[in-house]
Amino acid sequence: MKRTITGVKPTGTPHLGNYIGAIKPALELAEGEGQSLYFIADLHALNTIHNKSQLKKMTYEVAATWLALGLNPDRSFFYRQSDIRELTELQWILSSVTNKGLLNRAHAYKAQVDQNRTAGKEEDTGVNMGLFNYPVLMAADLLLMDASDVPVGRDNLQHIEIARDIAEAFHRQYEETFQLPKPIVSEPSAVLPGLDGRKMSKSYQNTIPLFSEEKKLEKLVKRIVTDSTPPEQAKETEGSTLFTLYREFGTDTELAQMTDAFRQGIGYGEIKQEVFRVMNRALKQPRQKYVQLLENPEKIDKLLESGADKVRPYAQLKVKKVKEMIGLL
Amino acid sequence: MKRTITGVKPTGTPHLGNYIGAIKPALELAEGEGQSLYFIADLHALNTIHNKSQLKKMTYEVAATWLALGLNPDRSFFYRQSDIRELTELQWILSSVTNKGLLNRAHAYKAQVDQNRTAGKEEDTGVNMGLFNYPVLMAADLLLMDASDVPVGRDNLQHIEIARDIAEAFHRQYEETFQLPKPIVSEPSAVLPGLDGRKMSKSYQNTIPLFSEEKKLEKLVKRIVTDSTPPEQAKETEGSTLFTLYREFGTDTELAQMTDAFRQGIGYGEIKQEVFRVMNRALKQPRQKYVQLLENPEKIDKLLESGADKVRPYAQLKVKKVKEMIGLL
Repeated sequence: MKRTITGVKPTGTPHLGNYIGAIKPALELAEGEGQSLYFIADLHALNTIHNKSQLKKMTYEVAATWLALGLNPDRSFFYRQSDIRELTELQWILSSVTNKGLLNRAHAYKAQVDQNRTAGKEEDTGVNMGLFNYPVLMAADLLLMDASDVPVGRDNLQHIEIARDIAEAFHRQYEETFQLPKPIVSEPSAVLPGLDGRKMSKSYQNTIPLFSEEKKLEKLVKRIVTDSTPPEQAKETEGSTLFTLYREFGTDTELAQMTDAFRQGIGYGEIKQEVFRVMNRALKQPRQKYVQLLENPEKIDKLLESGADKVRPYAQLKVKKVKEMIGLL
Repeated sequence: MKRTITGVKPTGTPHLGNYIGAIKPALELAEGEGQSLYFIADLHALNTIHNKSQLKKMTYEVAATWLALGLNPDRSFFYRQSDIRELTELQWILSSVTNKGLLNRAHAYKAQVDQNRTAGKEEDTGVNMGLFNYPVLMAADLLLMDASDVPVGRDNLQHIEIARDIAEAFHRQYEETFQLPKPIVSEPSAVLPGLDGRKMSKSYQNTIPLFSEEKKLEKLVKRIVTDSTPPEQAKETEGSTLFTLYREFGTDTELAQMTDAFRQGIGYGEIKQEVFRVMNRALKQPRQKYVQLLENPEKIDKLLESGADKVRPYAQLKVKKVKEMIGLL
């Protein structure tokens, strides 16, 4: 059976670019056949977040974000990694068939080593074992649930390869038991432009936060950089930041009308009003839901707990089978 | 409160040297004040034993050995590592505060690297992540239970240091919560001589297996190498293999008489008879119990399960506390 799994790291408040580039396509998976699993990777987050209240806050925020944007916990499985204890059990078991050499070559670790070398430091400066072991826990994330399909960006492809390598090492040593996960590489689709026209990215400080208040959102849209073409002159839709944003939120009819308006001439002020209108139309409800959820974190806890309760029997059965296979029970 | 913890690796059938040098002193701990925990380190064993039936067999054998030799599961805590899921949870959490550099310097790992280098191989050839992560799981073994005293040989001292380092790193990052374990170094006490007079050791093939049948035991004692001093001539007790073995099993009165006999002259055949007699007297009951236990592995399972049930509440509470401290719950 097709079973898709998506890990979500608790990080800062997401922006429009995250939504269009990652969250929306991942949520569409749940509409296809098979099962869709989404988990909050809080055990992975421990590598970078060493602060209790920050981790809690980010966990709630990321959960509220996905739920507000349409993750349906009744039709999919939504849980917190740390609620499934079988994950670390499997991670330890997999460690014993994982060659250290495999992890020496992991990109994230190597990047850190390179950075240290360049700075004239010891190779492993600042490397904690959570970072080094990351690919083994990620293998456990996928293999415990027998995930068949894993949507990833190109930069994450290696993790799936490592998970497959570890599964195959286990199979060689013992018996076949794990589904080999298949990476589903999302093509570098819609790169959403930011306020200044460059790719929307936190590092450029040009983002539109997903859940800005209405007034704030309107202000941000007004700040989008345009050129000095006068209102009455025809404008190119191609390469226009405003048009690209409009395309994500307008209906087909609206798009056709806007294309027409660009051709016939329309003032940037008017376009911005219209961009704000369709954007706000799409985000109004999610924004309300997001705020409501964050006001009731115990509701999020409950949802995540019942999500964990739903996947736990599978995890337990799987670990039991694996333990029997290696002589632990 | 004083809480002593001893990890027992499932390995081959133990011999007299193991008993006198390690098992007996460890069992005496349970007679002192405080609590004594003993666990079968089956998760650690996964690094070397990649065979289901071998791991099962060795687990039962080592459990039967300790129980037969007097481990009282009512007065102490005797459990299987893999039955306490909280251990791997804590191991993962500790990973995130463990510098990789700390593990690069671990003796067991370095020994393997040196061996590879000498053989002209890649440093990490044959190193699995179970071996590399070993000290972190061992830290979890100790810290999860808030063990205060850990009896170790000198070669294991570094593991306790690493566990303390990891605990202190956690305390610096979050809050004080773990008892810092103190190593209790067992002095190189009674080195038991083997059949050929050298230290009793598997690698010398000079061992007397602990649970040899009576006839076999008698045969082995008869094979102990002696010199050609004639029966009537006085003999040195100092340095005598037979006398050293006798000292471990004879009563004070018997020892005094034997010392006398050595001084006045006694034949080696007669001494061997006497050595066999006191040895067999001590081992007869354990041998029977060992055989009985191995005939009823389900009884061992039950004992270990109820041992795990006894420590689990503590482990659960501890992990809950730790998770709250880092923002996971």
